[in-house]
Amino acid sequence: MIELKKDERLDDLERNGYKIIQNPNKFCFGMDAVLLSGFARVRKGEKVLDMGTGTGIIPILLEAKTEGRHFTGLEIQEESADMARRSVAYNHLEEKVDIVTGDIKAASRLFPLASFDVITSNPPYMTDAHGIKNPNAPKAIARHEVLCTLEDLVRETSRLLRPGGRFYLVHRPFRLVEIFQTLTAYKLEPKRMKLVYPFVDKEPNMVMIEAVRGAKSMIKVEEPLIVYKEPGVYHDVIYDIYGY
Amino acid sequence: MIELKKDERLDDLERNGYKIIQNPNKFCFGMDAVLLSGFARVRKGEKVLDMGTGTGIIPILLEAKTEGRHFTGLEIQEESADMARRSVAYNHLEEKVDIVTGDIKAASRLFPLASFDVITSNPPYMTDAHGIKNPNAPKAIARHEVLCTLEDLVRETSRLLRPGGRFYLVHRPFRLVEIFQTLTAYKLEPKRMKLVYPFVDKEPNMVMIEAVRGAKSMIKVEEPLIVYKEPGVYHDVIYDIYGY
Repeated sequence: MIELKKDERLDDLERNGYKIIQNPNKFCFGMDAVLLSGFARVRKGEKVLDMGTGTGIIPILLEAKTEGRHFTGLEIQEESADMARRSVAYNHLEEKVDIVTGDIKAASRLFPLASFDVITSNPPYMTDAHGIKNPNAPKAIARHEVLCTLEDLVRETSRLLRPGGRFYLVHRPFRLVEIFQTLTAYKLEPKRMKLVYPFVDKEPNMVMIEAVRGAKSMIKVEEPLIVYKEPGVYHDVIYDIYGY
Repeated sequence: MIELKKDERLDDLERNGYKIIQNPNKFCFGMDAVLLSGFARVRKGEKVLDMGTGTGIIPILLEAKTEGRHFTGLEIQEESADMARRSVAYNHLEEKVDIVTGDIKAASRLFPLASFDVITSNPPYMTDAHGIKNPNAPKAIARHEVLCTLEDLVRETSRLLRPGGRFYLVHRPFRLVEIFQTLTAYKLEPKRMKLVYPFVDKEPNMVMIEAVRGAKSMIKVEEPLIVYKEPGVYHDVIYDIYGY
């Protein structure tokens, strides 16, 4: 049995019968997290860390989709971390998934250096926190760089990845130049990239990047991911990633 | 009347009745140059330089498509430059288009600094000149960085563009990280990017970038350009760019 708190709901992940607890008044996972879980490659036996895990969507999906050995989700907001822990318990994943409450900015003091094979992140996209009514609100923290900048995330990721380890990031295309600059400044070389276009004739609204610690410069830009075939109808690849 | 030399042919550009002289045994322009001429924005009265112009395809197409004031093509291979000059004459463009024989590496000694509003280039894509049978062959020089590296091109471009001036580059996606690094190192900020995918489910084989001298970091990634609707049938956008 699981205890749902006020306003919380239990959503089906369409994978292994797993479910996840979310509070739609606070923050629900988006397509970004689901697509990143399809883009990331986790090999058998690998150890994975998700930076800013929210309600734990990425580690739970990766546990379902891959043969990784262990998954850790790091989350600064206790309320989200608590939901994530209860989702882990609901799905009986306590042996495989840990949720740690803590700050991305100080992640390299929470875990041993170079101890992860894979790090994932669906971080806040917006730099500018001006004009946010309530910068302490869960949605603001998840969307704007209130508590942690892109550079904080990349610096800590670089410290925690083993040499040759892989970082999977989903972000907004308008920050692509800065993302590449920050990654390479911390020796994380972008090696694979996929742009997500909502429609075939529209600008991309997401970019997914695989960066490898210590690799040489040469990137593979993949075929486009086009979300909708027509309004309201996903392309098959989206149904595949969602597991319908 | 125009004098065609051995093996040369006169190709119709489908724009203003313009034609271009090419030698299919040496090097013919590709879709890259045509797409770049559709991606580049030249405003009324602007002065344009094309770095490594080959047979002059880009300045001739831009003269046809835009209201730019003057177009210069810089080309190191005398044989190509000579074909370009004869094409300029054939199309009666002597007042608008100049072909200069010279080296990209030393371009900032050939023209006044900061004297162009727009610079375009469809440079050699391949870094590795190892194993090329004849590095002096026109095709090798056009395709491999035998005579000029990406850094040479970007450095000289930065010197020749006025502040706020725009650089339009077509290149291969696998060098995207290095391209961004080199551009930003020379204060050319990538502001607009378009990936060219041969088919909707294939990896892109070209990237077009607009970089602005001295601009702030923030890039607009555009809708994808997908070349073929089905094998042998272009998407309409390609017919538009080609002017059919």
